[in-house]
Amino acid sequence: MLMQRTSKKELAEPKKGLMTKALILHAALEIASKSGLEGLTIGTIAEIVNMSKSGVFAHFGSREELQVEVVRAYHQGFEEQVFAPALSKPKGLPRLNQMIDSWLKMSVGGDTSSCFFISGAAEYDDRPGIVRDELVRSVEDWRAAMLRAIKESITAGHLKKSVNADALLFQLYSIVLGVHHDSRFLGHSKSLTTANKLIKEIFASNKVNK
Amino acid sequence: MLMQRTSKKELAEPKKGLMTKALILHAALEIASKSGLEGLTIGTIAEIVNMSKSGVFAHFGSREELQVEVVRAYHQGFEEQVFAPALSKPKGLPRLNQMIDSWLKMSVGGDTSSCFFISGAAEYDDRPGIVRDELVRSVEDWRAAMLRAIKESITAGHLKKSVNADALLFQLYSIVLGVHHDSRFLGHSKSLTTANKLIKEIFASNKVNK
Repeated sequence: MLMQRTSKKELAEPKKGLMTKALILHAALEIASKSGLEGLTIGTIAEIVNMSKSGVFAHFGSREELQVEVVRAYHQGFEEQVFAPALSKPKGLPRLNQMIDSWLKMSVGGDTSSCFFISGAAEYDDRPGIVRDELVRSVEDWRAAMLRAIKESITAGHLKKSVNADALLFQLYSIVLGVHHDSRFLGHSKSLTTANKLIKEIFASNKVNK
Repeated sequence: MLMQRTSKKELAEPKKGLMTKALILHAALEIASKSGLEGLTIGTIAEIVNMSKSGVFAHFGSREELQVEVVRAYHQGFEEQVFAPALSKPKGLPRLNQMIDSWLKMSVGGDTSSCFFISGAAEYDDRPGIVRDELVRSVEDWRAAMLRAIKESITAGHLKKSVNADALLFQLYSIVLGVHHDSRFLGHSKSLTTANKLIKEIFASNKVNK
């Protein structure tokens, strides 16, 4: 069989390639979380991972394709850190609350922990191309998950049937944008507390009275 | 007197200088509204206004100082287009409503009419320096005007005394961020309608019942 004839070295090659690619991606994610996706240059990455520019190019083809991979890697991390933990909560308001809570904590957690879904949106709203397309896909994916959680909250009887799910999604998403803006740009430390109180009030006024 | 001795040519010089400066600023504002403040380069501007790079430098000293002037020029335009018309409305809710309404219209008005107060915030939240400082000053100025209008709405008896003005400011500002995000990045054309409905509901639930 083909597999048995393959030497150990040959088997190791693609693995090594994958590891190098992962190393490059990791470095790229770090740079992008500080300087934005547009701050990514093949040159800077090559320097950090101690490779030649052409070595980095060999793994990604172009700067844009690297940026797309960075968005995908971020999306995957986001799913693991923000979305997956919420799935362990019961469907409905507990899950929706958990989703927003982790997202808020993650996006204002520290100097370098800007949420790409938010910072990238601002960076690419005027730049058409494959990076923007990938970002929009990621954001729409996350919004679809939130919308599902809102609808499940209605089905579960946690929120009133009269609630307009799309409008509530807009309202909640805007609040997270507000926290991101006020804490990162204006340096207002109280915005997270204000937002949490507001979210509680919004849910309370949309709750089914028992 | 000194004035009488000044030749026509000498008198015209500073005027010409001011006009050139205004011309450069105008070009810079156009570029920045398309490519962001970070997209501004002395080279591009020099090309558009048909001057040498050193000619442009002579008027602004540095790229950062030019960016600061662009923020100031934008702020001035914002005051004229958004703030001044609201001052003709009666103090309280009519004025507050007008402020938000013009701001929303302006920030989603067209492809190139992004609001610098919003796009700049995202661009500079991680970049300390004089441009960020100027932007923060402009945004805080606008927020102070909105806060004043909220407080006047309470004093005028249009909004309940129990309203937390800071929290309401956060809520309204977030909604505008949401419209900017959804319309410009996601291309959701309905976000303005959703936002206007939401703002009406927020004011209705905070209104004094007569």
